[in-house]
Amino acid sequence: MKNNKIGMSHGAGGEVMGNLISETILANLSKKSVNGGIGLDALDDGATIPLENHEIVVTTDGHTINPLFFPGGDIGRISAAGTINDVAVMGAKPLAITNAMIIKEGFPIEDLSKIIKSMDETCKEADVGVITGDTKVMEQDKIDELVIVTTGIGIVEKGKAIRDSGLEVGDKIITTGSIGDHGMSLLSFREGFGFETDLKSDVAPVWGMVEKAIEIGGVTAMKDPTRGGLSNAINEMASKSGVGIIIQDEAIPIKQQVKAVSDMLGIDPYEVANEGKVIMGVKADLADETLNAIKKDKYGKEASIIGEVVEGKRVLIETPVGGQRILEAPIADPVPRVC
Amino acid sequence: MKNNKIGMSHGAGGEVMGNLISETILANLSKKSVNGGIGLDALDDGATIPLENHEIVVTTDGHTINPLFFPGGDIGRISAAGTINDVAVMGAKPLAITNAMIIKEGFPIEDLSKIIKSMDETCKEADVGVITGDTKVMEQDKIDELVIVTTGIGIVEKGKAIRDSGLEVGDKIITTGSIGDHGMSLLSFREGFGFETDLKSDVAPVWGMVEKAIEIGGVTAMKDPTRGGLSNAINEMASKSGVGIIIQDEAIPIKQQVKAVSDMLGIDPYEVANEGKVIMGVKADLADETLNAIKKDKYGKEASIIGEVVEGKRVLIETPVGGQRILEAPIADPVPRVC
Repeated sequence: MKNNKIGMSHGAGGEVMGNLISETILANLSKKSVNGGIGLDALDDGATIPLENHEIVVTTDGHTINPLFFPGGDIGRISAAGTINDVAVMGAKPLAITNAMIIKEGFPIEDLSKIIKSMDETCKEADVGVITGDTKVMEQDKIDELVIVTTGIGIVEKGKAIRDSGLEVGDKIITTGSIGDHGMSLLSFREGFGFETDLKSDVAPVWGMVEKAIEIGGVTAMKDPTRGGLSNAINEMASKSGVGIIIQDEAIPIKQQVKAVSDMLGIDPYEVANEGKVIMGVKADLADETLNAIKKDKYGKEASIIGEVVEGKRVLIETPVGGQRILEAPIADPVPRVC
Repeated sequence: MKNNKIGMSHGAGGEVMGNLISETILANLSKKSVNGGIGLDALDDGATIPLENHEIVVTTDGHTINPLFFPGGDIGRISAAGTINDVAVMGAKPLAITNAMIIKEGFPIEDLSKIIKSMDETCKEADVGVITGDTKVMEQDKIDELVIVTTGIGIVEKGKAIRDSGLEVGDKIITTGSIGDHGMSLLSFREGFGFETDLKSDVAPVWGMVEKAIEIGGVTAMKDPTRGGLSNAINEMASKSGVGIIIQDEAIPIKQQVKAVSDMLGIDPYEVANEGKVIMGVKADLADETLNAIKKDKYGKEASIIGEVVEGKRVLIETPVGGQRILEAPIADPVPRVC
C-alpha cells in the first residue's frame, strides 16, 4: 500500500523520491520542454531552451542545509556552487544565478550578510552574476532559519549540451576528485564527534575545471553527484544511457578521514553528497588527456579514472582481490538535508 | 539604532524591505548584471541577459502563501502566474518556469497533486513549460506546509525589454483591472469573516493581455503590483523614472466587496497585493487604443486610465471633490504573506 503522506525519503534523491517525482509531478504536467530543448522528463541536471545558435541552460535547486555554516563553506557558497555546477555539467558556461531567500523572522542580519558575501565570493570565482532575487520572511515557527533557492542560467552552442545519458560502451569513467567529502564532513560536524578532524566540505564551483575537460573533445556524459552521491549518479548515468559500468573500487579516491567517519557510522561514502565533484564519461582514446587537463585545475588534483562502460544494465564494482558486487542506487539518501 | 534581526516587515515589499535589500544584499554582491543586461541593482520585475538578437528575461519568486488553497486559486496557480507575470511585465514572452518545492514531512500527497495540476493549468493557459525543478523535504517543525520557488524564463527582442523606469511626462497610467482583489480576498478568507462574499483572488497569467497592449506600440513602462500593491508599484515607477504622477481616485476600479473588507479592517486596498493586474505607462496618443486592446482580453475588461505622468517627484491622488493627497509607498505590506 502506498503511503499517502510526504516522508523525508521523498526528498532524499533516491528511488522513493524518483517515484514521487514521476507519479505526482511528471504525470500531472503537460508541457515539460520548450522548442525541442531538454525538458523535465529527462530529469537531467538542467533543462535547455534553444534560442538562435545557442541553448539556454536552466537549473534550479533548493538549499535547506543544516547547519547553515559548516567546515569548508556555508549555505551561501553551496547555493551558488550547487547551481553553477548543475549548469556546468550540462556542458554550458554559467552566466548568472537568481537568489530567492525565505528567511525566518528573528534571523540575525549579520549572518545573512556573511551568507551573501560567501555567495558573492563563489560567484566571483566562476564569473557569474547574481542578477535577480526575491526575499520572503516567515514567522518563527514556520521555517527553520533560512532556505535559499537558486536558479542557474548558462549558455552552450546549439546541440553541444552534454547529457547524463550519453555514455557509450568503451567510455572511461572519471571522477574529478575524492568521494564523500561533503556528506561525511557535514555529518561528522553536525553530530559533534569528539575526535580531531580537518575534514571539510568540498563545495566549490567547478565550471573552470569542466571547461578544461570539455575542450579535449571526448566528454560524452556528465553528472553532479550531489544527493545520493556517486552511487546515485553512476546508476542514473548507466540506466539512462542503457549501458553497464564496471568500477574499480581501489581507483575511487577517498580520504582516510571520510573512510573513518563512514566506518564508524556505517554509512556508505559512495551514497552521500559531493558538492565540488563531477562524474564523467569520456571516450577511451581521450581519457588520459582529459584526466590530465582536469588535474591541472585546482579542484581536479585527485581526479581518477575509476571504471569503464560495458554492455549490460548493471553497475558492478570490483574489489582489489577480484570480487565483484552490484553498486545499487540508494533507496534514499542516508544523510538527509546535507545539501 | 538599527534592528539587527530580520522582522516580518523585511519581507513585506515596502521601505523596510528596500533598506534590507540595498544594505545587506546589493552592497555585498559584486557582479549584478551580465553582458550589459538589466541586473539586480535595477530591482525591476526581472533581469535580462543579452544573447545574439534577443534578451533572455529571468525572474524568481518565493511563494509562502497561507492558506495554500484559497478562493480563486492555490499556491500552484500563484507560483506559476506570479512568475509568468513578472516576465510579461518586462515585455517578454514567457517560455518556461522552473519549480523548486520545499515540502513539509507529512504533507498530503493528494494536495501536492492538486497543486501541481493547478500549476499545469496555469502554465497551459500561457503556453509555458515547466522544464526543470527540485524537491526538498523538511522535518515537520522546520517548515510551514509548502514553499514553492519558481523562476521564469522569457525572451524579448534585443533592446525591447520594458522597464518599470520608462515613464515620461505626459504618459497615461493604465491599470488593467480592479485593485486589491487578491489581498483583500485572502485576508477575508483567512480571517473567516462571517458575511457572505464571493470575493476571490484575481490570480491569473496575463501575458496574453500584455502582448495585446505592447503591440499597439505605446507602452513605456510596466510593473506587476504584487507586494505593496498599487501604492508600491506606482511609487517605484515614479521614483525610478524621475517623474511625478497624478492619479484620479474615482478612476481606480475597485470592487464593492474589496472596499467593504478594506473599510472594516482599516487596511488600504491600494497597499495589498494584486496577482493578475498590470500597471502601465502609455504614450498619451496611444492610450485609448491600448486601453481598448486590453479590454478585449478576458483579464482586462475592467481596465482603466487612472492618471497621468507629470513633472515632479510625488504621486498625488485627486479625489472627486477636488482634494489632493500624497499616495505614499507603504512602509511594509499590511497583509503579510498573501503572495
